[in-house]
Amino acid sequence: MVTTGGLFELVQDDLARVELALSETAQPEHPLLGPMLSTILPGSGKRLRPAVALLVGNLGQYQPEPMLHMATGVELLHTASLVHDDVVDESELRRGARTLFTRVGNALAVLVGDYLFAQSAARCAATGNVRVIGLFAQTLSSMCQGQIEEASRGNNPHLSVTKDEYIQTIWGKTASLFVLACEGSAILAGLREPQVEAMRRYGDRLGLAFQIVDDVLDFVGDETHLGKDVGSDLRQGTITLPVIYLRDSLSDGQIRAAFEEYDVERLVEFVRESTAIDRAYAEASRLLEEARAALREAPAGEARDALESLTGYVLERRA
Amino acid sequence: MVTTGGLFELVQDDLARVELALSETAQPEHPLLGPMLSTILPGSGKRLRPAVALLVGNLGQYQPEPMLHMATGVELLHTASLVHDDVVDESELRRGARTLFTRVGNALAVLVGDYLFAQSAARCAATGNVRVIGLFAQTLSSMCQGQIEEASRGNNPHLSVTKDEYIQTIWGKTASLFVLACEGSAILAGLREPQVEAMRRYGDRLGLAFQIVDDVLDFVGDETHLGKDVGSDLRQGTITLPVIYLRDSLSDGQIRAAFEEYDVERLVEFVRESTAIDRAYAEASRLLEEARAALREAPAGEARDALESLTGYVLERRA
Repeated sequence: MVTTGGLFELVQDDLARVELALSETAQPEHPLLGPMLSTILPGSGKRLRPAVALLVGNLGQYQPEPMLHMATGVELLHTASLVHDDVVDESELRRGARTLFTRVGNALAVLVGDYLFAQSAARCAATGNVRVIGLFAQTLSSMCQGQIEEASRGNNPHLSVTKDEYIQTIWGKTASLFVLACEGSAILAGLREPQVEAMRRYGDRLGLAFQIVDDVLDFVGDETHLGKDVGSDLRQGTITLPVIYLRDSLSDGQIRAAFEEYDVERLVEFVRESTAIDRAYAEASRLLEEARAALREAPAGEARDALESLTGYVLERRA
Repeated sequence: MVTTGGLFELVQDDLARVELALSETAQPEHPLLGPMLSTILPGSGKRLRPAVALLVGNLGQYQPEPMLHMATGVELLHTASLVHDDVVDESELRRGARTLFTRVGNALAVLVGDYLFAQSAARCAATGNVRVIGLFAQTLSSMCQGQIEEASRGNNPHLSVTKDEYIQTIWGKTASLFVLACEGSAILAGLREPQVEAMRRYGDRLGLAFQIVDDVLDFVGDETHLGKDVGSDLRQGTITLPVIYLRDSLSDGQIRAAFEEYDVERLVEFVRESTAIDRAYAEASRLLEEARAALREAPAGEARDALESLTGYVLERRA
């Protein structure tokens, strides 16, 4: 299995500080918040977004305090959005564990999500950089707008979704947070404007590729590692890139029938047997190539090397 | 009927600009957001919080642009919290109109609330003042924590709630936003530190008194103006100050029985017939006296006079 292990070596001490900050935010001693936050904040997740933020922060003049707030704020924003996603989708499980929504119900899950947004806003404010704070607010807005578009369709699969619409959706959902992590940290590190712009591009491409691979893994991933069944997106009515590719290559009557009947089991099979998976990987690969091209404008060194290696991890991960 | 009419004369042009900013945030041309926001943002409400913010901004060096963002941000934060309140309480009506939750359902109401939080964060960021932005994040956090405490009790009336606990709850729910409006604007207006502190105190007392009167009106208000039935808080399991006073003066066996049976109709009657209403008004009055005392530390002038008159309006309003 491909792990993030060595990639984050350069920032492992600061990642440990982020972990501590997240544990503190979980308010272990609070009788009400403690039990609710204990399963969603400490020790869970790969901390990919904070790690990316910290690495970008190392490209320039590294600012330990603002960077700690930035990396923690980005992870809190990510966690808050997952909590509300589960409310919106009424999801029972996330990565094999019961969601907060299932455990405490709709009302409290909405409010705990809000609380995490507030903590995330406080961290962003604590960076002390007005431009970074503005970016944070913009990111939150992009994330919501994407989710609103999606939710307004309910569970009706949007079968005619175009590739452009799909990219727009995953930009709001995933890439926008990577952009915040990269652009925000580049600003805090005092990089020159063209380099800030390049890091924004890096975050954009990395985030898009990350989500495309995520969507591919929903078809070909290892269910034990994914913590969910293969084809779960389709079952929820979410049309992702492999399905778009399959649909656009329609010539086979059987495939067309499976679409018309929205036969999830057969659609999953068709996707797995077709070139759709390879084409989606090729698209992710192309985006990651652009991410590496953007990186070349950043100052050379260990941090840049790690960010470059990260593009390999994103493509090759299996869960 | 007591109206806010003349009180806001000094800031009426800027209030009109806030109104315009809110209308723009409602995105009338957006096919999805437009219809959802059109009923909750433009033209609704008394705009009390933005008006207070603008008046405080006039106590010092008035900064038109930051103050526009501040006043708009405060109202957006208020609106966002109302949208999520209705989700949490599953409320059908607010001031006589169907809530967004009822019109578009749980998922979209959660996301639209998030979107409004994002817009509010963007406005606060646009003030360009890191201290004000920090205050904003703190306020959001206080508001959530209060709501979480309340929601964790579900619909079980917390009959043993103390006056201190009640004050703590309404601080998070209402006063914290008035504090943000006053303290934030005082900072933007460049008031001296003791004056900033005094304006914080003014906002705190004004906000608490405002909510106490709101809770009294739930017993004695005019249903047409309130847009809801008398006793609706009790019916939702919310114990407010008049009920706490009634309970603490328990000597009558009939009242005790009404509590034990949680007989809302009779409790409403008992509250109306007892001294509880007068005592709650006396408490609001005492808080407003403290608000006026705080005001005396602010620079004299039209803005201060209007803020002083506002304390009278808060006590005397009927809806």
